[in-house]
Amino acid sequence: MPAAFSFRLLSTDGAARRGEIATPHGTVATPAFMPVGTQATVKGMLPEAVRASGADILLGNTYHLMLRPGAERVAALGGLHKFMNWPHAILTDSGGFQVMSLAQLRKVEDRGVTFRSHLDGALVELTPERAIEVQSLLGADIAMQLDECSQLPAPHAELERAMRLSLAWAERCKRAFAAGPPGRALFGIVQGGDDADLRLASARALTDIGFDGYAIGGLAVGEPQEVMLRMIEVVALALPAGQPRYLMGVGTPADLIEAVARGIDMFDCVMPTRNGRHGLAFSRFGPINLKNARHAQDPRPLDADSACPAARDYSRAYLHHLVKANEMLGAILLTAINLAYYQELMAGMRTAITGGQFAAYRDRIKAMWAQGDLPPV
Amino acid sequence: MPAAFSFRLLSTDGAARRGEIATPHGTVATPAFMPVGTQATVKGMLPEAVRASGADILLGNTYHLMLRPGAERVAALGGLHKFMNWPHAILTDSGGFQVMSLAQLRKVEDRGVTFRSHLDGALVELTPERAIEVQSLLGADIAMQLDECSQLPAPHAELERAMRLSLAWAERCKRAFAAGPPGRALFGIVQGGDDADLRLASARALTDIGFDGYAIGGLAVGEPQEVMLRMIEVVALALPAGQPRYLMGVGTPADLIEAVARGIDMFDCVMPTRNGRHGLAFSRFGPINLKNARHAQDPRPLDADSACPAARDYSRAYLHHLVKANEMLGAILLTAINLAYYQELMAGMRTAITGGQFAAYRDRIKAMWAQGDLPPV
Repeated sequence: MPAAFSFRLLSTDGAARRGEIATPHGTVATPAFMPVGTQATVKGMLPEAVRASGADILLGNTYHLMLRPGAERVAALGGLHKFMNWPHAILTDSGGFQVMSLAQLRKVEDRGVTFRSHLDGALVELTPERAIEVQSLLGADIAMQLDECSQLPAPHAELERAMRLSLAWAERCKRAFAAGPPGRALFGIVQGGDDADLRLASARALTDIGFDGYAIGGLAVGEPQEVMLRMIEVVALALPAGQPRYLMGVGTPADLIEAVARGIDMFDCVMPTRNGRHGLAFSRFGPINLKNARHAQDPRPLDADSACPAARDYSRAYLHHLVKANEMLGAILLTAINLAYYQELMAGMRTAITGGQFAAYRDRIKAMWAQGDLPPV
Repeated sequence: MPAAFSFRLLSTDGAARRGEIATPHGTVATPAFMPVGTQATVKGMLPEAVRASGADILLGNTYHLMLRPGAERVAALGGLHKFMNWPHAILTDSGGFQVMSLAQLRKVEDRGVTFRSHLDGALVELTPERAIEVQSLLGADIAMQLDECSQLPAPHAELERAMRLSLAWAERCKRAFAAGPPGRALFGIVQGGDDADLRLASARALTDIGFDGYAIGGLAVGEPQEVMLRMIEVVALALPAGQPRYLMGVGTPADLIEAVARGIDMFDCVMPTRNGRHGLAFSRFGPINLKNARHAQDPRPLDADSACPAARDYSRAYLHHLVKANEMLGAILLTAINLAYYQELMAGMRTAITGGQFAAYRDRIKAMWAQGDLPPV
C-alpha cells in the first residue's frame, strides 16, 4: 500500500530546513526543486533522464492539461503518472496562474474564473471545486488550492481583494478535497503581493483553515529579490514548522539559496528548462551563454567535474555549434545540464543543512559564482 | 591499433548479401542502415541512444559541416567522432548532393562547383580535391567521391554529361585520397539517372578505376520504385562482389527490403528521423500517423513487442498528445521508435540471409505491412 502524505523535519540550520515528504509515489528529499512538466512532459527530456538528474517530484500544469488532452481523458488513461511514464511524485498547480497569464477574456468572480482557452477559444470555467476535481482526475500527489495571483505593482485594495478571494477559495478547495481519495495532500497558497501585513494575514488565516503544506504565491513576478526575501521572512514566521513550505515559480540559483536560508522547502521554476532551450547553462561558474562566440573553439566540457554526462562528454565548442545551428540536441543537453545543476545545488544544500554548514556552503557557492566562468584556454 | 577498412562477404541468399565492414571505428554488420547526422547530430537523439537503436555507423553531411562549424574547426577539435561524441564508424557524403539541393547560385564546371552558402551567402568552391580534404579533416571512416547528381527526368545528353563529369571527378578524388591517412575508405558513385546503359557504363568505369566500395547515387529522387530497382539490378551485375554497395538516400522500409534482395549492403535516409519529427512512426504494422485522432484515447503502446522502450513504455494516446502539442518529446520518442524499427528490419534481414530464409522473411514482413495497424480497441 502506498504511503500517505506526510512531512518530517529532519534537521535545521538557522532558518534552513532539511526534511522529507512521503507521498503515494515515493519520498521527496527537501529542500526540493521540482522540474516543470507543463504539458505532461519536461520539455526535451525523457522521464528517466529527469529522474537521473536527481528529481524526486515534478510539477504538472492543471491549466494546460485540462485543455489538452483533458483531465477526464488523462484519468481514463490511468492518471498523469502513467500517462507520462513518471512513477514518482507529482504536484499539480491549480491552473489559476496560467489562467491569468495565458487565457483570453478571463473574468474573475467569487464563484470562480471563466476564460477562453488559448488553444481553441472554448469558454471554460474554473472554480475552486473544479480545480480540485481536475487535480484529482490527474492523480496529483500534492494538489494546490485555486488562488488569484496579483500582478505587481498593484494598489493595496487590489492586493487585499485578491488575497481575500484566495482565502475564500482556499476554504472551498479544502471542502472539495476532503471528498477525494485519501493519502494525497492539499496546499494552501499565501497571497498579499508585496504587502507584509496582507501576507501575514493570509498566512495566519490559511493556517487556521489547516492544510498539508503552504505555498507562497505571487512572488518572482518582477519585484526586486529583496522584496521577495522579505515577504518570505514575514510569512515563514507565521507558518507551522511541521508542514512543508513551497515558494511557487522561483527561481534563479541565487533565489533558491536565499529562500532556503529563510526556511523554504520546495521550489518549481521553468528557468533551467526554458533557458536551456535558449542556449543558457547554469553552472558552478554561474550562468554561461553558449551562444557566445568565445565558446566556438573551446574543446573543454562545460564542467569536467559535473555528475551530469551532458556537462562532461561534449565540448563547449560542440554545445555552441548545436545552439547556433538550432539543433534539438542543444536544447536537450543544456536542459539536462541545467536540471542536473539545480538538483546538485539542492543536494548540496541538504547535505550542508544536515551538517550544520549551510552558511559556509552558501558563501562558497556564491564565491564560485562571483568568480565567474573559466578563463579562456 | 585500429583496424583498416575491409569488407568480408559472409553469406549470400539469392542476390542478398550478409557481410561485415571493418573500419578504424568498429565493425559494421551489413546490410546496414546509417542514420543521418546532418549537422554533427542525429536530430533529437543522444549519441548513446543512436547506438542503442542498433546503429554501427552514421552519415555526416560534408556540405553542412564545411559551412558550419567548418571542417578545419572540427579537425582542430579532434575530428567529427570526438566532436559529436560518436566513437563508432562514420561515413561522410561528398557535399555534392546538398550543393545541388540547398545552395544558391551554384555553377558546375569541370574544375568543381561554386555556390553561395545557404547560411550567409558566402561564395564557396567545392572541387573533388577539396571534397576529399574536407572529409579527411572530418575524419570520416568512409569518404565519398564528389559527384553530380541529376534531377529526374532529364534528357539523355544531360544524364551522360553529369555521369562523365562524375567519372572525371572520381579519378581526381582517388588521387587526392591516396595522399590521406591510411585505413580509411573511398567509395565511387555510380550515376546515369534512369538510363540503364549509362548506369552500366558508369559502374564499369568506376570499377576500372577501383574503389573500396561503390555507391549508387541519383536514385529515389522521384522516379517510380520499379525504375530504381531496375537500375540497382543493372548496376549490381557490373560491380565486384568483394566490395560493399551503398544505395544513397534510400528509403522506405519496402525500398530497403527490395534493394537488399538485389544485392545492396548499405543505406542512409532521413525518413526515420524526419518523419519521426512530423508524427509518423514506422512499425511492423506499417506506417502509423500519430496525429490521427483515432489514437487520442488509445492506451496501447505503439508496439508492445518492440525492443525499443519508446515503442513500449508510452501509450499511443500519449504520443498523439505530444505530437498535437508540438512537444520535443514527441519528436524524440518517434525518432527513437523509427530508428529502432529500421535497425530491427536490417537485423532481421541479416539473420534471414544467414539462415537462407530471406525470401520467406521478406514475404512475412510485407504481409504484416499489408495487414496494417492494430484494429481499434
